[in-house]
Amino acid sequence: MTSDVDASGPGPEARLPLRPGLEGLHPYGAPQLDVPVLLNVNENPHSPSEEVVSDIAESVAKAATGLNRYPDREFAELRAELSEYLRIESGVRVPAEQIWAANGSNEVMLHLFQAYGGPGRTAISFDPTYSMYPEYARDTHTTWVTGRRSADFTLDPAHAADLIRRHHPALIVLTSPNNPTGTALPLETVVAVLDAARGSGPAGPDGGHTDSVVVVDEAYGEFRRAGVASALTLLHEHPHLTVSRTMSKAFGMAGLRLGYLAAAPALVEHLRVVRLPYHLSAVTQAAALAALRHREEFIAQVASLRQERDDLVEWLRARGHAVADSDANFVLFGMFEDRHAVWNGLLERGVLIRETGPAGWLRVSVGTPQEMAAFTAALQEVDPR
Amino acid sequence: MTSDVDASGPGPEARLPLRPGLEGLHPYGAPQLDVPVLLNVNENPHSPSEEVVSDIAESVAKAATGLNRYPDREFAELRAELSEYLRIESGVRVPAEQIWAANGSNEVMLHLFQAYGGPGRTAISFDPTYSMYPEYARDTHTTWVTGRRSADFTLDPAHAADLIRRHHPALIVLTSPNNPTGTALPLETVVAVLDAARGSGPAGPDGGHTDSVVVVDEAYGEFRRAGVASALTLLHEHPHLTVSRTMSKAFGMAGLRLGYLAAAPALVEHLRVVRLPYHLSAVTQAAALAALRHREEFIAQVASLRQERDDLVEWLRARGHAVADSDANFVLFGMFEDRHAVWNGLLERGVLIRETGPAGWLRVSVGTPQEMAAFTAALQEVDPR
Repeated sequence: MTSDVDASGPGPEARLPLRPGLEGLHPYGAPQLDVPVLLNVNENPHSPSEEVVSDIAESVAKAATGLNRYPDREFAELRAELSEYLRIESGVRVPAEQIWAANGSNEVMLHLFQAYGGPGRTAISFDPTYSMYPEYARDTHTTWVTGRRSADFTLDPAHAADLIRRHHPALIVLTSPNNPTGTALPLETVVAVLDAARGSGPAGPDGGHTDSVVVVDEAYGEFRRAGVASALTLLHEHPHLTVSRTMSKAFGMAGLRLGYLAAAPALVEHLRVVRLPYHLSAVTQAAALAALRHREEFIAQVASLRQERDDLVEWLRARGHAVADSDANFVLFGMFEDRHAVWNGLLERGVLIRETGPAGWLRVSVGTPQEMAAFTAALQEVDPR
Repeated sequence: MTSDVDASGPGPEARLPLRPGLEGLHPYGAPQLDVPVLLNVNENPHSPSEEVVSDIAESVAKAATGLNRYPDREFAELRAELSEYLRIESGVRVPAEQIWAANGSNEVMLHLFQAYGGPGRTAISFDPTYSMYPEYARDTHTTWVTGRRSADFTLDPAHAADLIRRHHPALIVLTSPNNPTGTALPLETVVAVLDAARGSGPAGPDGGHTDSVVVVDEAYGEFRRAGVASALTLLHEHPHLTVSRTMSKAFGMAGLRLGYLAAAPALVEHLRVVRLPYHLSAVTQAAALAALRHREEFIAQVASLRQERDDLVEWLRARGHAVADSDANFVLFGMFEDRHAVWNGLLERGVLIRETGPAGWLRVSVGTPQEMAAFTAALQEVDPR
């Protein structure tokens, strides 16, 4: 058939009813520039191994023979394998029915905001932190309130408790390790927030206060230093806690979009109500399962990235930079009077990092040893000391 | 590492702040039963061919080597190929930047409701129609208003215009071909709704009325009978129109989750603001592109399914059933005093259809010739005439 109608080009104008609050906004996302050394979005620098790639291809081929059918809405096998992975990684047994997953932890968070947020409801977090959170609130009509982390990027439990008691949030988002600072929260801080959250949520159907849901976003959890515990260890005693993870970072699967969380069964049931049916494709389920079969390989890779991270922190400190302790696969460093000039100087040398975080700081992802060499060489030129 | 913490089993209880309106609700979805003949969710009965499967596997393998990186947020190549497919399928040239896609047309619809719906805003549709629509409204706090289709499942333009003028909807959802009735709307009806929608939307920033966005859901569009036009042909003259499609049905890719729409550039820009960044995985993009390369194969398959659909309609009418005209890959037939008994009798004979639509009707998907033979044999036993 030839093209007999052309829908392009200028036609009549419409006055589209974009909802209030969205006018003039731009889509979220770091610039996607074509630069040799990409250290700007905390990706894992290692491509999947040949073994992982061929396992994914075989698994997807097998799933593809049944693609005409809808996928398993409950992704039962994937939940079981994520459960097994968490047991190995963190020593915590979370049954499969206490696991939830979606297309990136973005969508996991959206489900949480859809279930517990909404008009007249509040979610709180503590700046500086991940810049997507306010968008989940905006897209679910949830009021967004931010407290502050201390100057060393830790969280003062008394400040958090005070904010919680004043705002009765439906959701409290703690990020540990925090993005963009790299700071992990000690379990005592998380417990203090969990305690303050009890009976501090919005009024329930009977008028009494509910418990605020505490979300610990552990997107970078696998990179925590030895001796730093996961909030997963608190799950059993705190049914209003949920801990989210992702395959984007430790598994080097940012392109796959697979985020997940662990929580009490009642909480997972609530997310099932608001999810779009069949939200996880058969292809996503098959590819994620293939990657999870190679978990030992990824766990070893994470260990080497942690070592590189520690080396980078040491190198930056030896140069006299302020460096935030990092339990993640990136490092926040400073202080620069003109951080944009430094960022731009690095970019001119083919190294893209992220101009983010509090004024004066820059964030660099941990890349391969070659990429780290390019970064350190470029930084020495841009900022000789 | 051994499991040293157990997060399963009964622990303390929480009073979770589930938002009002979600209490007691169950997740959406047809029963997933293990039955030999599945004719209940309008899937394409044909598994992808070996050529399609191997192309998907090769394409995903190639994409998998870069999975550690985030996917193309703008899915530029996929948009270009969807644009080319629409040109071939419907004869309408829609430039790539006027295409939007997401994980299933479910998510495409959610984006529309997020951009244009919300508290204080209304969306309207006409029953009987697809039962997921109210969930998009619920999940975005949009008021949901339904008009009625006529007894023959067509839409009375005067009734539609009256409802639009009374409610000033932000969104008007027309389904063509309609699910579960199979009815395609004549273009004159769509144009009448588009005309009524002009200046009938909610008040804009300056207080004047906006235009309601008219969504024509053409999930089953490829199955329309000869001479039935797609609403894509109206796009150029109606910038408040959007037409959604899916790869779930005509491409037999329900397991892939790829829905898309065509619209004016301004409308697509609004959806970019509310989408979660990187919502379409690199794996989804690669698999969809592979399937699109085989479009001629799928277009031929659709032609044979349409023939089977027409044969089924004829057979049912010859038996004396009431049958709604169908432009889809399913048929609504009746009338039964006790439709549940008929549904159940078919199920006992290994044939699962859907108990949906107005009282007295049942819906059956068009399967393979073998599946159709199983269905007709079972129906003759259950309902001898």
